[in-house]
Amino acid sequence: MAKTVRFYEFGDASVLKLDDVPILEPKAGEIRIKVAAIGLNRAEVMFRRGKYLERAEKFPCGLGYEASGTVDAIGSGVTGFKIGDKVSTIPAFSMQRYGVYGEYAVVPAHAVSHHPDNLSFEEAASIWMQYLTAYGALIEYAKIKKGDFVLITAASSSVGLAAIQICRVTGAIPIATTRGESKKQFILNAGAHTVITTDTQNLVEEVNKLTNNQGVDYVFDPVAGEFLQVLAQATKSGGTIFEYGALSTNPTIFPLFDALKKGLKIQGYTLFEIVSDPEKYKRGQQYVIDLLSKSNVKPIIDKTFPLDKIVDAHRHMESNSQNGKIVVTV
Amino acid sequence: MAKTVRFYEFGDASVLKLDDVPILEPKAGEIRIKVAAIGLNRAEVMFRRGKYLERAEKFPCGLGYEASGTVDAIGSGVTGFKIGDKVSTIPAFSMQRYGVYGEYAVVPAHAVSHHPDNLSFEEAASIWMQYLTAYGALIEYAKIKKGDFVLITAASSSVGLAAIQICRVTGAIPIATTRGESKKQFILNAGAHTVITTDTQNLVEEVNKLTNNQGVDYVFDPVAGEFLQVLAQATKSGGTIFEYGALSTNPTIFPLFDALKKGLKIQGYTLFEIVSDPEKYKRGQQYVIDLLSKSNVKPIIDKTFPLDKIVDAHRHMESNSQNGKIVVTV
Repeated sequence: MAKTVRFYEFGDASVLKLDDVPILEPKAGEIRIKVAAIGLNRAEVMFRRGKYLERAEKFPCGLGYEASGTVDAIGSGVTGFKIGDKVSTIPAFSMQRYGVYGEYAVVPAHAVSHHPDNLSFEEAASIWMQYLTAYGALIEYAKIKKGDFVLITAASSSVGLAAIQICRVTGAIPIATTRGESKKQFILNAGAHTVITTDTQNLVEEVNKLTNNQGVDYVFDPVAGEFLQVLAQATKSGGTIFEYGALSTNPTIFPLFDALKKGLKIQGYTLFEIVSDPEKYKRGQQYVIDLLSKSNVKPIIDKTFPLDKIVDAHRHMESNSQNGKIVVTV
Repeated sequence: MAKTVRFYEFGDASVLKLDDVPILEPKAGEIRIKVAAIGLNRAEVMFRRGKYLERAEKFPCGLGYEASGTVDAIGSGVTGFKIGDKVSTIPAFSMQRYGVYGEYAVVPAHAVSHHPDNLSFEEAASIWMQYLTAYGALIEYAKIKKGDFVLITAASSSVGLAAIQICRVTGAIPIATTRGESKKQFILNAGAHTVITTDTQNLVEEVNKLTNNQGVDYVFDPVAGEFLQVLAQATKSGGTIFEYGALSTNPTIFPLFDALKKGLKIQGYTLFEIVSDPEKYKRGQQYVIDLLSKSNVKPIIDKTFPLDKIVDAHRHMESNSQNGKIVVTV
């Protein structure tokens, strides 16, 4: 038997239950991992609430996108892995079918990757969602380069931090936003050129000061909602705003006049565009592996929880007080 | 003296007055044209109402983007033109400083072009706004190609018709929308593959039938407003929606979930992006000249009015009953 996190209804963190379930055998094309660490994502909170891009249709339902551990069993037709390999999972599957919150995780082989040796299991459970998501928008699509101004909102999230790090490696200038003062120093330490605190500073004025009134080249935003109008004001003519989430609960108004006047592009984006395209996926995986093995970039971990404290771990994520990735150890 | 249309306050068509004003001398870099025909645009209606991208700051104010005629006087430093040349004007200037509604128009030389000999003056006053606008989105940016599905809304407008014609020349498949049945046959005759009447048909269902449930590759829309949500549903994964106007008076909601799920790009676009970039402007001018001289494409003219009926001509545009370009002859 294996301890596995499942939920029986949509709701707050308390719906997560630690069940004893039989250990599954991997089918053709699948791999079973003995899990060492699990990286938590906002996606799982949304999925648990029934507010994610996909919605659980059967209960009980597992969840979880990112785990690291060792290969424990291999289904037929899988090549490139052997028992005992250190691996981590990439969010390239449906959480209705697969979930990694547990002592063992069975996942499709295409969503399993080796990772650089210099990473701990906690770190290896904290790389794919954040670096591959930031990679797709900033490198695959925007092709950011030295001197580009990139505005990164919700910058203390793991994807925001990854975006800051990727900007630094390419020579682009990461301008970060956060609401209050509490996370400002942390985000500066993580590599932001400037942190704008939106509760107390005027975002457009601050961006104008930094960019000689030109605005930023790119925006990387998971919030949406009414703030998109402000982001459009802070964006340069011809600039692109990536919307990669829906954290705001308010309707998102399209900034029509700024878009027309400045020829702005507003691009919906998720990691699934990258992992569903074999060429982009391959380039992205290689980029992340190179980034973590050839530069001094490492994921920033906020705090670890044991598996039986998964409810507390989700509550901690929803408190928005974390600085970096929340990890569950198994 | 020269009869010149000016307005003294924002308002309905009746604010347009035909004044006698002294004939202006072209300054350095300017050309004076003896006007033969004027092409009317929605932009002038919006400008007259005070609702355009730029707003008149001094009255009386002239207006008008597109005229054809002969070169009548040439300012210092202008090369490439001689007195008597047949020319037409390109909307590459501010209507606060320049307007072409009148017997004579002084405009910056960079906004003056020779045009193919096979065009009448009425036709030559009806080419630049419509073909260059459609060119920029469909050719310069989208690079449409054979077999691409392009959804063209407000298709009976002159820019909509130009977009249909450019799709046909490139082998793309123009799917047009119009509200009722009254313009359907006209739009089919203009080259649309299919016309969807949005008052009586379900746009998404009709698009799905035509595209094997894939959605269209591109949308070219001047309406915005709440309809953008429907357009997003009708767009293919990875597709682009060009918003090039603001005809709707309702707020435009950003279609966040469709954008995230399908990785949609929603791009604000106006002709000014093309005419303000020397390389794009040059490519666009050449494209339009080639299109009109080497294919059988011609602008579709709805109706002509004499200059002293300019108020009626504007009212006709606002009636939305026209099929193609409204031209004023001088």
